[in-house]
Amino acid sequence: LPAKLPNTGTTIFTVMSALAAEHGAVNLGQGFPDFGADPVLLQAVTDAMAAGHNQYPPMTGVPALRQAIAAKLNGLYGSAYDADRDITVTAGGTQGLITALHACVGAGDEVIILEPAYDSYDPAIRLAGAVPVGVPMTGDYRIDWAAVRAAITPRTRALVINTPHNPSGRVATSDDLRELERIAEAHDLFVVSDEVYEHMVFDGAPHESVARFPGLRERSFLVSSFGKTFHVTGWKVGFVAAPPALSAAFRRLHQYTVFTVHTPTQHALAAYLADPAPWQGLSGFYQAKRDAFRAALAETGLKLLPCEGTYFQTVDYRALSDRSELDFAKWLTTEIGVAAIPLSVFYQQPQERRHVRFCFAKRDETLAEATRRLARLA
Amino acid sequence: LPAKLPNTGTTIFTVMSALAAEHGAVNLGQGFPDFGADPVLLQAVTDAMAAGHNQYPPMTGVPALRQAIAAKLNGLYGSAYDADRDITVTAGGTQGLITALHACVGAGDEVIILEPAYDSYDPAIRLAGAVPVGVPMTGDYRIDWAAVRAAITPRTRALVINTPHNPSGRVATSDDLRELERIAEAHDLFVVSDEVYEHMVFDGAPHESVARFPGLRERSFLVSSFGKTFHVTGWKVGFVAAPPALSAAFRRLHQYTVFTVHTPTQHALAAYLADPAPWQGLSGFYQAKRDAFRAALAETGLKLLPCEGTYFQTVDYRALSDRSELDFAKWLTTEIGVAAIPLSVFYQQPQERRHVRFCFAKRDETLAEATRRLARLA
Ligand SMILES: CSCCC(=O)C(=O)O
Ligand SMILES: CSCCC(=O)C(=O)O
Repeated sequence: LPAKLPNTGTTIFTVMSALAAEHGAVNLGQGFPDFGADPVLLQAVTDAMAAGHNQYPPMTGVPALRQAIAAKLNGLYGSAYDADRDITVTAGGTQGLITALHACVGAGDEVIILEPAYDSYDPAIRLAGAVPVGVPMTGDYRIDWAAVRAAITPRTRALVINTPHNPSGRVATSDDLRELERIAEAHDLFVVSDEVYEHMVFDGAPHESVARFPGLRERSFLVSSFGKTFHVTGWKVGFVAAPPALSAAFRRLHQYTVFTVHTPTQHALAAYLADPAPWQGLSGFYQAKRDAFRAALAETGLKLLPCEGTYFQTVDYRALSDRSELDFAKWLTTEIGVAAIPLSVFYQQPQERRHVRFCFAKRDETLAEATRRLARLA
Repeated sequence: LPAKLPNTGTTIFTVMSALAAEHGAVNLGQGFPDFGADPVLLQAVTDAMAAGHNQYPPMTGVPALRQAIAAKLNGLYGSAYDADRDITVTAGGTQGLITALHACVGAGDEVIILEPAYDSYDPAIRLAGAVPVGVPMTGDYRIDWAAVRAAITPRTRALVINTPHNPSGRVATSDDLRELERIAEAHDLFVVSDEVYEHMVFDGAPHESVARFPGLRERSFLVSSFGKTFHVTGWKVGFVAAPPALSAAFRRLHQYTVFTVHTPTQHALAAYLADPAPWQGLSGFYQAKRDAFRAALAETGLKLLPCEGTYFQTVDYRALSDRSELDFAKWLTTEIGVAAIPLSVFYQQPQERRHVRFCFAKRDETLAEATRRLARLA
């Protein structure tokens, strides 16, 4: 077998979820809700199946869903995506990301990723034949634009941005996006923008999408995920929005990668998107969970880092332990009974900052049980 | 944008389905049933959603589904696949194929495909950095093993076989598989075996899976599709069975390509597979459609080629028209009102043998209307 991704093991999410299950730990590791999805959405899938929507949809996605996506993006971000030309339904955010990267970079190209970086970016870039160039974020997880500028070479072809940012919970500002726009224009870069947490931004701040910035929009693949937005991470349906030339390149690869996506779910999402309440309410819903979770951790000795978006809370445990992040996450799982994700795995060169990430997309009872167990750290 | 798949347009299936819709043609082009799926299966998806199976399943697939797949394969083919180690649930056959190819070949490798070859093989091989080498089948669409042997070079790393064969409807014999086994062993080749029509073999012949032949099984990725087997082509769920080292390589790429697959559908399929009747009855069900369709075409001037499996009937139209295959398929669609697929698109160097393919996975009324229209050819 050829040595594809020779240094790659099983994703940290699989490892920690398995360890959590084995030890009966409360699983605040892998990012998924432990509560039910909206029965209205489930019923819509049942209705779509009953209506006979079980055969191939168009390769690019069910037209009504693409229209609903374009209308929502254009309404929120002032963009002018065309449903037929610019929107492609994907088999989740992960497939959107890897196919977008394959569409815009190839052998010899360099792609900047901002570290800590979600774990699929690096292998996706390598599989496209390109070289991932990790640029560390600042000590408090803001984007270090000077470092980004310093990392650019004549071979740099693209940059991956992720806001709200997983794992740190930071949210990019309009200044960040304007700086990205300047850099991308000056160096003629493509942008792959992972916005799967677009509807989880706290304290009244806006989500700054690449779709808001004309100079970015025209060179960006915007990736999002219905699994994250509607509490159905197992459904694996997302989308990519991109201008015509980028969408054409994307679709050329998409059609041979998955061809298309679960038809009844697409019809259900098209119907469900008619009501904006579910996604409009999401920031408030998760902000309440964030606040309760942070309050409950106050006395544990874990230092809480800022959480501006996503459903992740990063903590600094250096006051409590000298363990490496991976060891601490495993120890938390097996000894304290709460699974977490070490941030060290999100770097090309493992960093040790004594930071781990908890997912608070959980029922209040689950979070209460987790914080009861974490209180033993104090 | 880098020139990925520069000569690739939209798949023929998308083109012909769109043309059929535009002209109100009976769509016997793209391969999908126009009848409903089993309500028991639909109900099982509804039940799985209600039971809360909406979050990430394990990356490799829901355990109960992998167990059902392994048990079925081992029962049918005398193999000994291990559910945990050797079976991975995929986002349809197409994703299984491209990920299997990426797992076993890379830059500089050559991969033999047997032409006419399903349209995703060539781009999938190119995207993996390898070179597809088309070997024509014989005039009556049998595998030309002498030509295969002649095409092998020191760079040949893999061969893609497809049985039952789309588009021709031919089925490989045990002699074919034994010959493949000898060749693969002699030249240490990987085999990607597209068996998505495994349960559609007619006239009492068996399906000869690579899983039946130990020397093949240990070097093969066996790809199948529940969409084809259970009349739900839009659900996009399939699987890949492969020995441990191949499965490990496959999963390393799979986890960054789609990560995992629609959870409720996996649970539903696991439950549904408990009853063998649906797939055991499939050959008989489609054989009756084949026989009726062939009988109805007898007087049209279209020459019927053998149809031993799949749900496709290939015809030779040279007695009726001098048009190229693509032109004839378009003319049939727009003027006669029946869409078909030209076989010429399944070759690297377009061949003109005056052959087009009809899909007979349709309600009897649909086939009756199609054959009524085709009678105008006589
Ligand atoms: C695809 S499993 C990982 C889920 C996730 O996005 C996370 O936990 O960061
Ligand atoms: C993925 S659309 C094509 C369906 C099919 O397998 C065929 O028509 O050959």
